[in-house]
Amino acid sequence: MDRMAETIKEIFHEVCPAVETPHGKVTIVGVGQVGMACAYSILQQNIANELCLVDVMADKLKGEMMDLQHGLAFTRHCTVRADTDYSITAGSKLCVITAGARQREGESRLSLVQRNVDIFKGIVPKLVQFSPDTTILVVSNPVDVLTYVTWKLSGLPQNRVIGSGTNLDSARFRFLLSERLNIAPSSVHGWIIGEHGDSSVAVWSGVNVAGVAISKVNPNIGGESDREHWEQEIHKKVVESAYEIIRLKGYTSWAIGLSVAKIAQGIFSNSRNVYALSTNVKGFHGIESDVFLSVPVVLGVNGVTHIVNQALNTLEVEQLHRSAGSLLEVQNGLTL
Amino acid sequence: MDRMAETIKEIFHEVCPAVETPHGKVTIVGVGQVGMACAYSILQQNIANELCLVDVMADKLKGEMMDLQHGLAFTRHCTVRADTDYSITAGSKLCVITAGARQREGESRLSLVQRNVDIFKGIVPKLVQFSPDTTILVVSNPVDVLTYVTWKLSGLPQNRVIGSGTNLDSARFRFLLSERLNIAPSSVHGWIIGEHGDSSVAVWSGVNVAGVAISKVNPNIGGESDREHWEQEIHKKVVESAYEIIRLKGYTSWAIGLSVAKIAQGIFSNSRNVYALSTNVKGFHGIESDVFLSVPVVLGVNGVTHIVNQALNTLEVEQLHRSAGSLLEVQNGLTL
Amino acid sequence: MDRMAETIKEIFHEVCPAVETPHGKVTIVGVGQVGMACAYSILQQNIANELCLVDVMADKLKGEMMDLQHGLAFTRHCTVRADTDYSITAGSKLCVITAGARQREGESRLSLVQRNVDIFKGIVPKLVQFSPDTTILVVSNPVDVLTYVTWKLSGLPQNRVIGSGTNLDSARFRFLLSERLNIAPSSVHGWIIGEHGDSSVAVWSGVNVAGVAISKVNPNIGGESDREHWEQEIHKKVVESAYEIIRLKGYTSWAIGLSVAKIAQGIFSNSRNVYALSTNVKGFHGIESDVFLSVPVVLGVNGVTHIVNQALNTLEVEQLHRSAGSLLEVQNGLTL
Amino acid sequence: MDRMAETIKEIFHEVCPAVETPHGKVTIVGVGQVGMACAYSILQQNIANELCLVDVMADKLKGEMMDLQHGLAFTRHCTVRADTDYSITAGSKLCVITAGARQREGESRLSLVQRNVDIFKGIVPKLVQFSPDTTILVVSNPVDVLTYVTWKLSGLPQNRVIGSGTNLDSARFRFLLSERLNIAPSSVHGWIIGEHGDSSVAVWSGVNVAGVAISKVNPNIGGESDREHWEQEIHKKVVESAYEIIRLKGYTSWAIGLSVAKIAQGIFSNSRNVYALSTNVKGFHGIESDVFLSVPVVLGVNGVTHIVNQALNTLEVEQLHRSAGSLLEVQNGLTL
Repeated sequence: MDRMAETIKEIFHEVCPAVETPHGKVTIVGVGQVGMACAYSILQQNIANELCLVDVMADKLKGEMMDLQHGLAFTRHCTVRADTDYSITAGSKLCVITAGARQREGESRLSLVQRNVDIFKGIVPKLVQFSPDTTILVVSNPVDVLTYVTWKLSGLPQNRVIGSGTNLDSARFRFLLSERLNIAPSSVHGWIIGEHGDSSVAVWSGVNVAGVAISKVNPNIGGESDREHWEQEIHKKVVESAYEIIRLKGYTSWAIGLSVAKIAQGIFSNSRNVYALSTNVKGFHGIESDVFLSVPVVLGVNGVTHIVNQALNTLEVEQLHRSAGSLLEVQNGLTL
Repeated sequence: MDRMAETIKEIFHEVCPAVETPHGKVTIVGVGQVGMACAYSILQQNIANELCLVDVMADKLKGEMMDLQHGLAFTRHCTVRADTDYSITAGSKLCVITAGARQREGESRLSLVQRNVDIFKGIVPKLVQFSPDTTILVVSNPVDVLTYVTWKLSGLPQNRVIGSGTNLDSARFRFLLSERLNIAPSSVHGWIIGEHGDSSVAVWSGVNVAGVAISKVNPNIGGESDREHWEQEIHKKVVESAYEIIRLKGYTSWAIGLSVAKIAQGIFSNSRNVYALSTNVKGFHGIESDVFLSVPVVLGVNGVTHIVNQALNTLEVEQLHRSAGSLLEVQNGLTL
Repeated sequence: MDRMAETIKEIFHEVCPAVETPHGKVTIVGVGQVGMACAYSILQQNIANELCLVDVMADKLKGEMMDLQHGLAFTRHCTVRADTDYSITAGSKLCVITAGARQREGESRLSLVQRNVDIFKGIVPKLVQFSPDTTILVVSNPVDVLTYVTWKLSGLPQNRVIGSGTNLDSARFRFLLSERLNIAPSSVHGWIIGEHGDSSVAVWSGVNVAGVAISKVNPNIGGESDREHWEQEIHKKVVESAYEIIRLKGYTSWAIGLSVAKIAQGIFSNSRNVYALSTNVKGFHGIESDVFLSVPVVLGVNGVTHIVNQALNTLEVEQLHRSAGSLLEVQNGLTL
Repeated sequence: MDRMAETIKEIFHEVCPAVETPHGKVTIVGVGQVGMACAYSILQQNIANELCLVDVMADKLKGEMMDLQHGLAFTRHCTVRADTDYSITAGSKLCVITAGARQREGESRLSLVQRNVDIFKGIVPKLVQFSPDTTILVVSNPVDVLTYVTWKLSGLPQNRVIGSGTNLDSARFRFLLSERLNIAPSSVHGWIIGEHGDSSVAVWSGVNVAGVAISKVNPNIGGESDREHWEQEIHKKVVESAYEIIRLKGYTSWAIGLSVAKIAQGIFSNSRNVYALSTNVKGFHGIESDVFLSVPVVLGVNGVTHIVNQALNTLEVEQLHRSAGSLLEVQNGLTL
């Protein structure tokens, strides 16, 4: 396009060369529905000033990049790039992995995980090669075991390998509670911890509005003897809702995109907010192995700096141990 | 869920009943990729405080609604609803139509339009019935003729029936120019007018950076004698890019979602910004019939209040007339 | 300025007249440091689309209006107006009162309040006259008794008369806690209730991080037997900090401006968030008279719709009663 | 406060130490009305994640810091610090100087400038010492000559020394035009260049709405033969308005605060937007000396990278030369 340079040179006098700013750079691996919802949210919320997309499908990748770029006249500044080659990701402060295989009919969970491990072997080392100081956020499912896998494959310290975990489950929980209480979701405080999915644990003891613990009013809440059935009406719906959305529209995307944007914002702004994220819980609640599960953590620019100690009751600890055990079993069957 | 009421009653003392706020309500008809990108953008940018989705596919509709709702813990306040029944749209200030049929292989353009007219007959009167004071923004393609159709079907004054038109084409134009000039898209001012799509017109005479008209530096810009080929390098790419994205990823969604969010914001905030939107241009540039084409308009809470008079050159007027003529031909073939 | 109309008429063709949008209108009475910090915050956070300033000092008022208007090219859309005449406030959804007399040396508190009552008699009826559906937010001090006075003078239902109360004290409390815990203020949940100022009550029992009650870890927290002295290190500093800032810079402005903007946002977006605001607590915690004190309330577009029932301990109830008693005494001494 | 550590240690388990993030750090020198309006805007618009205030008045400084900190529970994350010692500014990406002496009665302009030069000698070298990679934005008046002085004192390359210049004058110009045209200020494009203040130049040739040059409709616009008197009605008011606001409220603050926030945002996001800023114009429009005046420039993370070449007419060039000459005279009289 050199022939246009003449006019441009007439309009602009260069004082010094323009520079790029890799410090606010985020890479998203995988441009499926989840990856693109993440990208679209991060773009709109002005979280990063460079957004890199990586995928193996060159066409789809270019199409998604162009579609985002054409919206840049409507957003604050962000540079959008895409390539199948990981060299464009160099200097990313955050890498979000949304790529992965979907479950085949009749396939065992372990087989699915192993296939994803093989895919991650082609992703994680390259991310670390080009961005040795990055934090990696795993979104692909099953998120807890794949976060463990990413930690192993990356060689990064555990504070810089995070799974999106039950941050989304907690948001669903708060939405359902807020709807029931008729107040804003951000004014209901409730946490889902443990495995992202079926065996997640609702910490009813901590649910509160303005510091008023709902368990003070209804001491049986969450248990089987609760005549008001909060566990069934709220937590069970959280667990089922992912399945229901997949049945209804084929996949989930919007809420996970907003969840990831929130986590990314916490990292880029070093805000030190508390999120429920998948992290190595070895040494917590009596878990003795390297297993990744969601617990409330303090998140900063260098990843997870602190874990919040929840005083779980016997039932909740038992449930966590069950999750940990089943994840451990999967981990032990993997070839890394 | 009445059995939970007891605990809730203990926690909250009612001073007066909660109320809904229909004044900031937007309805989106059609939950395909475009409709959902619009919804997701409007949600994230805090433009409305109630968002209604309508579609004929009840399952998909419910899935999309749930997926957005689960993200509400991450956004500012917005109520999200969805139904196949238009009664939930009552009191919308803005209705965005993204529904419509896609072109079948071998189908003539007129046939496609007629099929969409039939679909719109099931949409537009119901929108107006439940929200007589609404403004309608048409996004479905071919957008210009469908905006005309909506105007006819709705009985609304022409200021309250708008097509998203070349607002997106103008954004693509600015992005490509900004990339070439290495400055922010919001600091390059350029307008695409006319028909959304192939016969769109780049108004090169008005392209400027900080008031410096690029045509002052390169007087042949946009024309055939331009040795720098700006028309081919920039405007032609704008026209081709929609096709290219569709070829690469199957559809366009993100940029049109951001374009619609910007228009919605202009309406809800009554900001009186200038956008390139499809409006009735009868009486402009020598056009004598009721035809909808994009020109720069001033947008407020009551829709298009003013049209900006551009001093088009002979070529540009000719191109506009050609567009108008071909649209008129389609309009005349329609059964409304 | 009619002579410029010719050029303007050439540029714009009117399709229909532009309209104003009173629905997003906020009025601020008093353009001192507090009123202007409120105005500046509301402007920057895109909370309203019309901002009216009213004061008796015509010069200062005009200067502040012009100074805000000159920044409108840097913000999203908002119309800024100012007048000494209340007719410009017509149709306000929210009126914020920041006007009031300052304490004279040696003046008794009752005398100061009576002087402010006399000032409010010139403000409140005019606000209600021009905006009968408004909610009034009182910021002037002593805020609790002046909110009561405003309720009496206005004839409005109690849900639509609110005092900014301990929303600010709670923010100071959370900031000091967040600094001590090294996490984000928005991840520390703690509430200050009661009278805004000296006799405010820190509800230590409800302070929590991710649902983990700090009182579970330190059961003596807040009390005299707390060997860690949280009450002295945190709550006492909250109470003292207003005095300290006034000593250091002469007044407080920035934090109260942000507090008011948050409350205004809650009202305009009808978000139903919970805030600690001054409201009529008759019937709560054994208080039998019409007294305004801060407790956690659910805020919507029609003001306070619900009060959150906190399970206060004996000490806290005692403190509240003491506050109520002293306010009642002042109220009884007033001539309304 | 070590005695509180026990409880805190129970609640949080440290995975790795929290870190600070100097990369998004801005320093503001001077906590008068202008400096604080800048700080308050930057805080609310989430532009930086660390904000440092420096001044010689320790008390006022601490009061302002505390007042901002108490609002942090209402904003996105930002660390706010203040000290009379410049060591806290280490690692700032942007330093904004708002400090300076005010004109004494009867004092000559040169004497005022010399006094400010002496003040700047105590500021600029320390800023550069602790943040050798910083960009400095001068806001103190007379801004153009003080920007030159800062360039000389700092030893920084000219791209990293900027004056806020006519960015504010241009905003006032757009607001007045927008009010007259009844459209949004962001849809009116107009530029004021030259000296900030009395001798500023309105570039009428470039004023446009949607690319429609107002000078095409009214060819005499801006000149003495313009029967519509746009220069008098609009530009003259821009020049007078600063004086008028100072007369009415004692100083200007809000609009300059928003102007500075916009410039800071452009730098931190490396957006490459075009602003009218004071820069070294040696070599432009026939100016042969190192003089700082405002012209449209492209702003990035490394400061001014390009100057936009405006095709000024003879009158405008003459006016610029007059400004340059008078500034040169002041510069030559200074002792640096």
